[in-house]
Amino acid sequence: MMNQEEQWLLPDGVEEVLPGRARAIEQLRRQTLDLYQRWGYELVFPPLIEFLESLLNGAGRDLERETFKITDQLTGRLMGVRADITPQVARMDAHSLRRSAPSRLCYCSSALRTRPAVAGATRLPYQLGVELFGHAGSDSDLEVMSLLLDTLALAGVADQVVLDLGHVGLFRGLLDACDLSDAEQSQLEDIYVRKARVELDTFLAERDLPAPAARALAALPWLAGGVDVIDQARTLLGDFPGAVAALDELAVLAGVLDARGVKLHLDLGELRGYHYHTGCVFAAYLPGESEPVAKGGRYDHIGEVFGRARPATGFSADLKMLAARTDAAALSGILAEGSLQDAAFVARVNELRGSGERVVLALTGADNDPQELGCQRKLVSEGSDWVIKDID
Amino acid sequence: MMNQEEQWLLPDGVEEVLPGRARAIEQLRRQTLDLYQRWGYELVFPPLIEFLESLLNGAGRDLERETFKITDQLTGRLMGVRADITPQVARMDAHSLRRSAPSRLCYCSSALRTRPAVAGATRLPYQLGVELFGHAGSDSDLEVMSLLLDTLALAGVADQVVLDLGHVGLFRGLLDACDLSDAEQSQLEDIYVRKARVELDTFLAERDLPAPAARALAALPWLAGGVDVIDQARTLLGDFPGAVAALDELAVLAGVLDARGVKLHLDLGELRGYHYHTGCVFAAYLPGESEPVAKGGRYDHIGEVFGRARPATGFSADLKMLAARTDAAALSGILAEGSLQDAAFVARVNELRGSGERVVLALTGADNDPQELGCQRKLVSEGSDWVIKDID
Repeated sequence: MMNQEEQWLLPDGVEEVLPGRARAIEQLRRQTLDLYQRWGYELVFPPLIEFLESLLNGAGRDLERETFKITDQLTGRLMGVRADITPQVARMDAHSLRRSAPSRLCYCSSALRTRPAVAGATRLPYQLGVELFGHAGSDSDLEVMSLLLDTLALAGVADQVVLDLGHVGLFRGLLDACDLSDAEQSQLEDIYVRKARVELDTFLAERDLPAPAARALAALPWLAGGVDVIDQARTLLGDFPGAVAALDELAVLAGVLDARGVKLHLDLGELRGYHYHTGCVFAAYLPGESEPVAKGGRYDHIGEVFGRARPATGFSADLKMLAARTDAAALSGILAEGSLQDAAFVARVNELRGSGERVVLALTGADNDPQELGCQRKLVSEGSDWVIKDID
Repeated sequence: MMNQEEQWLLPDGVEEVLPGRARAIEQLRRQTLDLYQRWGYELVFPPLIEFLESLLNGAGRDLERETFKITDQLTGRLMGVRADITPQVARMDAHSLRRSAPSRLCYCSSALRTRPAVAGATRLPYQLGVELFGHAGSDSDLEVMSLLLDTLALAGVADQVVLDLGHVGLFRGLLDACDLSDAEQSQLEDIYVRKARVELDTFLAERDLPAPAARALAALPWLAGGVDVIDQARTLLGDFPGAVAALDELAVLAGVLDARGVKLHLDLGELRGYHYHTGCVFAAYLPGESEPVAKGGRYDHIGEVFGRARPATGFSADLKMLAARTDAAALSGILAEGSLQDAAFVARVNELRGSGERVVLALTGADNDPQELGCQRKLVSEGSDWVIKDID
């Protein structure tokens, strides 16, 4: 048995959300879902658990380690608690909806990770996101990016955010020009994820790659900075058609974002954390935070294992983190001293609530402290009438 | 490896919620949480997982079997995914809030059960509920009951519901008059839960109990029916003070519910499913459903293990089940043919969205089928202007 103090401990990276904070989160939840609704995104609730093989399909090894496993007592099969909602929504598009038109879906539900992404981070993100299936090209990336900026504006952090922007197609475009085995490609990708310069130089020196490709692969991880990085990259990557197409897409996005006054940081060799992405990728950082408040990008092949590969783009955020800098309005309320067995009292209270007032009943014998109950006024009987008075 | 068809299967009792249904659920979620807010209930988000010992504390053995266990990789300790949210909220009141005034808390989050309560039921309830801590007596039970009725009205099922009403204090009041060991009390409780008549008669015959208590214990499980059952029970239980107090509380509740036109079914020996309850208990049934759509009651000792026993009463419901008979309004929308790189177009679209319209962008090259996209009108350029037209 734990002692009483230990019983109150929550595991690391697991938080309870108390009233004030919960109100702020709920408010932003509604504002963002309403925003997505006005853009045509339809809310879905994917299930918290699925069979493990369905859950990890197409999502790659990273999610495997982050996923809690449980055994289905009905079948004996392994199930997992989702660590990420995006692959579930992709399955719903590919299998359950099967539309020919683009699908715009959004969600706001809990996910669960075995380990925090960095020390001190949550293992229980309240994942908010949008996904757009069925369109390849800048139009859909721009739409998702616009929604991200509007989301950050609702959270009151649009001015503070730095948006990291990259494109997985640059690295892929260079790989296409090299004759590397699958194992070598994985090894190189791993080196890129860690931006391990010495290892990278060794890897390239040990192989007989075409000189322009080797030069480009050696330089790409350090092509980072403002919008002008795109032009630098054109000189270096001009010979690789896949990479040039990626640069063209980046230029469109960067132009529009720049025009909207977003603080941009391009990082052309960034692959870390984008395990299922195939095109442009982005992450929004708040000052002082090592984890992005929102991230996303294009992921065109995720539906394949469900029999329907549709191009896809989207982003997700942790709503708890996103709402951390917003405040809910202070509680206002009326403390009502009467009984639910008194029809006239009940009618008056209903009327007040119907007009939007928050009315808290004073319970017989309880310490009905107005401050703890968030009430500044009271409803009291005066003769045959009920009147509202200020509480001193 | 599973084949493609198997990858699409969800475990039994695990559902995904597609757009139309999700919209209806979200709508009822907001309406009910707004209702609770107007009554003074503050929203909280208890964590999806906790250390197993915290989670099962005070909640009894039933929850243990229903709770999925996972291992915390950070500490090696066992954690559980909550099967019920009420005990978590009781902990928040006892430990995190520690108010002297009554605490009114509400929540709407997912829970997870190892097994469905009955065949075909969900293992993933979207649990909605209210809890009122810090007041003993009919006032708070009446408040919670009123909120339940208003909740059922929002769900459009108030007319159809039958409300089962009971009181754990009747059984406890009889036990007080009998000199039974803890093991015998548990055995008797188990017989009551199963309403096993032959076993009950044998149990009572084998023990030397006072005659009035034995007679009352033999009859209680079958005291069920309309409001007049309370008077029948007074004759049978008049000698047992605890039982009389419980009958008085039931009479107040039944009177108010009856006056509100609720279809009542009293079941005075009902204990099934009320593992942490101590006072009045209730369950709302929809026609044709074997599981209640909402249930609750008084549970006065649940906070004790956290060092602060406060009287408590509340109810919870599965929002997915509650919303099953509500429909969301059909989607209305405008399909807009333009580019996010065109500032005039963006301004016009923003203006429409600002006025509450749902505006879906037509993406270049995609099959922008208006029907699949839920659009009945379109925004098209005419000369230098943007105009809205009906889609034929």
